[in-house]
Amino acid sequence: MGVTIKDIADACHVSKATVSRYLNSSGYVSQEVAERIAAKIEALNYVPSETARSLSTKNSNVIGVVIPEISNPFFAEIFKGISDVAEGQDMNILFCDTDNQPDKEMKALKMLRTYHVKGMIITPASGGLKDPAYEKQFIDSVKLLNAPIVLLDRGVEFTEWDGVFTDNIKGAYGCTKLLIENGHTQIGTITGNLDLPIGQDRLKGYKNALVDAGLAVDETFIFEGDFSTEKAYQLTKVMMQSEERPTALFSPNNLTTIGILQALIEDSYRIPDDISLVGFDDIELLRTLNVKLSVAQRDPIDMGRQVMKLLLARMVHTGEKKLPQRIIIEPKLIARGSEKMKKHGQ
Amino acid sequence: MGVTIKDIADACHVSKATVSRYLNSSGYVSQEVAERIAAKIEALNYVPSETARSLSTKNSNVIGVVIPEISNPFFAEIFKGISDVAEGQDMNILFCDTDNQPDKEMKALKMLRTYHVKGMIITPASGGLKDPAYEKQFIDSVKLLNAPIVLLDRGVEFTEWDGVFTDNIKGAYGCTKLLIENGHTQIGTITGNLDLPIGQDRLKGYKNALVDAGLAVDETFIFEGDFSTEKAYQLTKVMMQSEERPTALFSPNNLTTIGILQALIEDSYRIPDDISLVGFDDIELLRTLNVKLSVAQRDPIDMGRQVMKLLLARMVHTGEKKLPQRIIIEPKLIARGSEKMKKHGQ
Repeated sequence: MGVTIKDIADACHVSKATVSRYLNSSGYVSQEVAERIAAKIEALNYVPSETARSLSTKNSNVIGVVIPEISNPFFAEIFKGISDVAEGQDMNILFCDTDNQPDKEMKALKMLRTYHVKGMIITPASGGLKDPAYEKQFIDSVKLLNAPIVLLDRGVEFTEWDGVFTDNIKGAYGCTKLLIENGHTQIGTITGNLDLPIGQDRLKGYKNALVDAGLAVDETFIFEGDFSTEKAYQLTKVMMQSEERPTALFSPNNLTTIGILQALIEDSYRIPDDISLVGFDDIELLRTLNVKLSVAQRDPIDMGRQVMKLLLARMVHTGEKKLPQRIIIEPKLIARGSEKMKKHGQ
Repeated sequence: MGVTIKDIADACHVSKATVSRYLNSSGYVSQEVAERIAAKIEALNYVPSETARSLSTKNSNVIGVVIPEISNPFFAEIFKGISDVAEGQDMNILFCDTDNQPDKEMKALKMLRTYHVKGMIITPASGGLKDPAYEKQFIDSVKLLNAPIVLLDRGVEFTEWDGVFTDNIKGAYGCTKLLIENGHTQIGTITGNLDLPIGQDRLKGYKNALVDAGLAVDETFIFEGDFSTEKAYQLTKVMMQSEERPTALFSPNNLTTIGILQALIEDSYRIPDDISLVGFDDIELLRTLNVKLSVAQRDPIDMGRQVMKLLLARMVHTGEKKLPQRIIIEPKLIARGSEKMKKHGQ
């Protein structure tokens, strides 16, 4: 239906091969003929087929972005940052949401391979599945892409891929230390998914801070969550009804914080009067509405921009030896009052 | 680097053309040879190149999704719904964020054309730009896609494309009527972008409700906004400082509501004690945290699922005559208390 190379060739009285050479810059075309072809392409509104071009040059203008959950505002904002930079460079994005499921991830990788993507940004669902077989399959599958890859927020062992990561131990350490400095000695946490290194590291940072301050790590104050709002809500309900409960909580991510807040608000508990709270990641809307939550803050839009810039840099240098580029983001501790110790035990 | 058709052909002792016929189901291949090829494809982990296949069949497995702002939770949730359904059908998504800018939109359309997308879901940046030249260019450009299109939340005049829309007049009417029923007679609004039909319609619904109740439409209570948080914040500040101000506000979208709340909270105004508020669209996080805002509610994840289902249905029926399918969502009015009239004038 659309305009084809043949239409252009006929209109210019040249062969299809000549038009093709012109389009792919792959051989001699005289100046005069090139100008004629360019004019016809313009006049007939011909768009060179990307599929045809990528087939001949093995070079598409598409990158893959594979992330675990676009409905989490943290990832939606990262995606916005990626999309901004990609757009400025005329790169197009094939988007995949894995829902944190390895089978969806493998499907996404296979799909990106068939499209010859020029590069990929991925937050692996596999990170720390404790399933070496899957991890090997994942790494092999990524390698088959034959394109640069940049990891986003989750590492993969035994690889030297570029990435933007977070110093999770330090972030969690800072949050917990802030509570300690405010006089808390009974500090609990609802953990993230402990199968993921980011879950383990944030728990480790919390424990390290307690130990460094000479405080006991009380396992009854550690509730195993999974980074979700629902689980955090349930665990907070249980925790608040127990006889012995912490005077303060460290929350390892935005969704956990929301679940904690939901449970506390529902039962009319106040922060920090009834329990203090410091969490990983700012919640943009609550910040806008002046809710005074203390947090370890990252800038997700900027993280998105940085990860896309790493990918662009790697795409330019393909073939050249270049050391792995790893940006480790150190969250910024912002104390807004929710860490304070007040009225407890009254 | 990867496995090619030639590798498969060599390993099976057949010609490349035979393998190609097998892959494209485009000619005779004996049962015995077909089985041999299938086994080798499996053994060598060969992935048929989508670019090659789409070139020969003009049929890719990709759809385009073009939306104005992924960082708006309303669209992020819609996108989640689209992505869920697409994933279940093994469809892949080429994503474009237009930032509501016509030039980015034209670029996106051109890009989708070069990839032979099988269909497209779009929230047009063009909707009501009052620029007939652009609108014509937009429609022509969409037609060149030669693929089904489904509109999301914004219509395009003179087209018969499928779509999922909202009864904006009725939604706004309901919000305003709720305020009237609670005794308010001085009801203001911060409008959306009045260049967009959705902005005009929500203003119209507000005015209609006033007129139907025999109330005057007071232009000094109508502040022209643009659907953004920043503008709503500024206008609310101005409004709250004016001598004569409304006792209640109708807000035309989630971001406007957030801007209003931000300004009110900053100056310690309470809802509904100092001013009442009813807005278009729920704000998921505030609902979770039990903030009692009355709203005209839609379910964006479900809207995303519905729009993707319309597209799938249209893709199946390509070629066949089928009437335009238009789903008009009627927002659900939820009264939670912020509409009440209290203490005003004290």
